[in-house]
Amino acid sequence: MLSETPRTRHRRIKENGRTDPADLHAVLAAGQVAHLGVVVDGHPMVVPTVYGHDHERIFLHGSVASRSLAGRGEVCVTVTVFDGLVLARSVFEHGVNYRSAMIYGVPRAVTDPGDLLYGLRLLTEHAAPGQWDYARRPSKKELAATRLLALPLAEASVKISDGFPDDGDGPDAALGLWAGRLPAVAAWGTPEPDPRLAAGIEPPPHIAGRAGAALHPRRPPPG
Amino acid sequence: MLSETPRTRHRRIKENGRTDPADLHAVLAAGQVAHLGVVVDGHPMVVPTVYGHDHERIFLHGSVASRSLAGRGEVCVTVTVFDGLVLARSVFEHGVNYRSAMIYGVPRAVTDPGDLLYGLRLLTEHAAPGQWDYARRPSKKELAATRLLALPLAEASVKISDGFPDDGDGPDAALGLWAGRLPAVAAWGTPEPDPRLAAGIEPPPHIAGRAGAALHPRRPPPG
Repeated sequence: MLSETPRTRHRRIKENGRTDPADLHAVLAAGQVAHLGVVVDGHPMVVPTVYGHDHERIFLHGSVASRSLAGRGEVCVTVTVFDGLVLARSVFEHGVNYRSAMIYGVPRAVTDPGDLLYGLRLLTEHAAPGQWDYARRPSKKELAATRLLALPLAEASVKISDGFPDDGDGPDAALGLWAGRLPAVAAWGTPEPDPRLAAGIEPPPHIAGRAGAALHPRRPPPG
Repeated sequence: MLSETPRTRHRRIKENGRTDPADLHAVLAAGQVAHLGVVVDGHPMVVPTVYGHDHERIFLHGSVASRSLAGRGEVCVTVTVFDGLVLARSVFEHGVNYRSAMIYGVPRAVTDPGDLLYGLRLLTEHAAPGQWDYARRPSKKELAATRLLALPLAEASVKISDGFPDDGDGPDAALGLWAGRLPAVAAWGTPEPDPRLAAGIEPPPHIAGRAGAALHPRRPPPG
């Protein structure tokens, strides 16, 4: 069970709240971009950033501007996947289907070189599985210039909505209007070579083979 | 020009920063979900929510839990579209292409019934153009139960990244590795009827005709 604290207790739509860590890991595996919330001079600031994760921590790339990061105290990291629209008979019952995770905590700057490599590998492999073993790995100098934050997954809240409209058995059902879901379908496209790429270099299988694959898989791909 | 304040000044990657309001409007038109950042008891909280907008204001649906909203002072609303990966020769030069807008300000609860209807229409039409004229509009009772926030677009920051890797003319180009972009392709899928829908009710053209259309168009569709 994910820990329940006053702010991770699901207040509004209780049926959407999940407390199984597997749901948290699945949402993190499915997302591509996290939104990092920090307090700067008393005001909120929300910055999009890439991430990677294991079962204990989420790693955020520090290039989201140093002022957003170290020494700012607690943060909130939210990962959301938009799955489509819920189109009801009445405007009032419209909604969206989504998968979302909110993680609260005090991030730690990753400084240990081994942990830095570990976190960078998670970030790289989250975005493009296979790329860590394909691309040139960071030099010592590059590693020293890399800022990474690690945030424990201990305090988190997960919400998943995947339903149909609620007004199918109310008076509005008699209106004769269509109702249902309009899904969002996100996939990886065809790789586009760098215009400066030398002739004859083809995309490796782990990139070329990804075209058409789901961008936000329901469950992590096997392996 | 969008106003420049200390926090909307583009600090890190200056070439990605935009100050043309048309870019702000285009990012807002292209996104589906906003991330609302608020400060609660001194701590940041980032909540995903749907939105609508005109050229002056962004409207957020208040169902994102009342504690996130009124009386919380300043907020930051961030809308991000993930456009794909930038795959370089070196891990260090990897990145993402994205369109992002950050809006700062003090939101106002919308209470005037006319403004409430106006904002709800923007939210509905942003998600599903044509749906406001098709679905049953809110009753007085529903309108009274609807919470909407309006935030001026006056203080905003826009970043758009749409490039190729930077290491095409450095020493890593000699590694013989493939480099380029892996685009994200997001489209609307085929409408899925509510299982409780009566037989013979087909999706209206504004829904049925959307299948295959881009979820995050580069420019707002005409009309």
